[in-house]
Amino acid sequence: MGGDRAPAEIVAGGRLAAEAGLPVLLVGPPDTLSGLDTGELPILAATEVIAMDEDPARAVRTKKDSSLVRAAEAVRDGRAAAMVSAGNTGAAMASALLRMGRIRSVTRPAIATAIPGAKESPTVLLDSGANVECTPQMLVQFAQMGAVFATARYGTERPRVALLSNGEEAAKGSPAVKEAHELLAAGLLDGRAEFVGNVEGRDLMTGTVDVVVTDGFTGNVALKTLEGGLRFFMRTLAGVLDSGPEARSAAETLLPLLAAAAQRLDPDEVGGAMLLGVDGVCVIAHGASSAKAVLNAVRVAHDLAAGGIVERLRDAVASAPAS
Amino acid sequence: MGGDRAPAEIVAGGRLAAEAGLPVLLVGPPDTLSGLDTGELPILAATEVIAMDEDPARAVRTKKDSSLVRAAEAVRDGRAAAMVSAGNTGAAMASALLRMGRIRSVTRPAIATAIPGAKESPTVLLDSGANVECTPQMLVQFAQMGAVFATARYGTERPRVALLSNGEEAAKGSPAVKEAHELLAAGLLDGRAEFVGNVEGRDLMTGTVDVVVTDGFTGNVALKTLEGGLRFFMRTLAGVLDSGPEARSAAETLLPLLAAAAQRLDPDEVGGAMLLGVDGVCVIAHGASSAKAVLNAVRVAHDLAAGGIVERLRDAVASAPAS
Repeated sequence: MGGDRAPAEIVAGGRLAAEAGLPVLLVGPPDTLSGLDTGELPILAATEVIAMDEDPARAVRTKKDSSLVRAAEAVRDGRAAAMVSAGNTGAAMASALLRMGRIRSVTRPAIATAIPGAKESPTVLLDSGANVECTPQMLVQFAQMGAVFATARYGTERPRVALLSNGEEAAKGSPAVKEAHELLAAGLLDGRAEFVGNVEGRDLMTGTVDVVVTDGFTGNVALKTLEGGLRFFMRTLAGVLDSGPEARSAAETLLPLLAAAAQRLDPDEVGGAMLLGVDGVCVIAHGASSAKAVLNAVRVAHDLAAGGIVERLRDAVASAPAS
Repeated sequence: MGGDRAPAEIVAGGRLAAEAGLPVLLVGPPDTLSGLDTGELPILAATEVIAMDEDPARAVRTKKDSSLVRAAEAVRDGRAAAMVSAGNTGAAMASALLRMGRIRSVTRPAIATAIPGAKESPTVLLDSGANVECTPQMLVQFAQMGAVFATARYGTERPRVALLSNGEEAAKGSPAVKEAHELLAAGLLDGRAEFVGNVEGRDLMTGTVDVVVTDGFTGNVALKTLEGGLRFFMRTLAGVLDSGPEARSAAETLLPLLAAAAQRLDPDEVGGAMLLGVDGVCVIAHGASSAKAVLNAVRVAHDLAAGGIVERLRDAVASAPAS
């Protein structure tokens, strides 16, 4: 029921996923869903809906029969292997956290978002919005979880992990970043990942590192700044391509090539962000998700669940040297 | 003597400025400068040079006869109306702060950077790197100073001032952002500016606000993220335009149009960032500044000094309701 284009596009995406062999359980009000073409998809009834702009914590507390809360319970109870939502991000997080619980030893879950860039596999940014304030120990755990995610999701062996800072030198950063740097440099990543120090904002799309660790405030600002910058550039380019008859004629040649290049930047292709650290798979798709975006998010959720991401995260956090 | 292309491009830029009627005083080692075509430009001797990668505070303390320190002293002593440097940003800041001192009542100076966007006049981002940690009161002062700068530099009447946060709602943000939001909403900007609440990273290039206030850590990350994103986009576009004979032919038509659009994003056109809050004009140009960039930075420094920016900042901070 979540997302700007729900429920129609969400249901359509679920059907696409089922056609692709990924079993999908719809969660929502049966009377609303009965008006849509849900095909053969089973429905888990949930009579309430948490709106995009509702206060997450309160909504999850009061709307116990909402689609988000019921979806998280379905994962907790083993009726589903993963949950996918394009709805209220905070409420999806709160539902997952409160109903699935945290992985043992995880202080706070973090949102891992994939940023496409120069390399084949994207750079994973976490935390991209869950925790405004972070201790150095939380940043260290994000590094550990991000490394596991990069390997599980993109097959990156020994991912390169960095801290986002205002300079590459170890002495740069907020007090929390500097202390996390010391901890990670002292070996708080096990041998399956490599800590490469600090990177700057300009390194998010160069593909020089596989995982970038930051607090949820800075991560949100960086991600949205990137979105805004790319949108500005796209609009500027569109203006140039439509600026006269000659430009429009040249644009005819270029548009298919540009569309192919832009496809890599399409949020619908990315497959959603994952909430790392809760005791279950929770994938958060873009609010504007189309059916295709939902299909991709379901595919990611399926693959992560099938690959045992939660067990791998549990092992990595449990086996990390104590900070 | 500062910048990746110093001293040749700096001197060339100084000559361009002098030709444009902007009197320039060069500061640096006479023996180095004597090997260059300095034309009629007067020279203020400074035997030492602070390198781009030197520790700023220590360099300013130990290299008392460096070009940066001598330039700041020239402003302090009234021998120059403003200083311009493309060198070590931290050392330029430290020189200005230690030699010119702060404007009375200013807690910490901040770097104001112009971000080009959808509107004619850019959005001013501050602090874009001077202060990693900021109190709410510092953020309020940055808002006051940023508003004065937007009016003085771009003629923006009653600039719209916002806080950079992880959401538009007043309840979003770090504790410092939330407290600064309360203070500004309670009226800590005088009638010459309007506080419009929080904006997100995606609003930096939309032109919806004139001044965006943040701490120097987040500001640095946002600015460099934008740089990196635009560089990635430019490279992707260049790849498409060079991807085959038809694309190259279309590119011939489009390149002049694209170059015109890109000119607005050219750091050489922006004219440098200004350190707001020191008792003198200090303009920090991009490290890779060309002669043209130096000319633009000198022009900005000249105009700000002629417009009495320091006096206007002093008035604004002194007359602000106490926080």
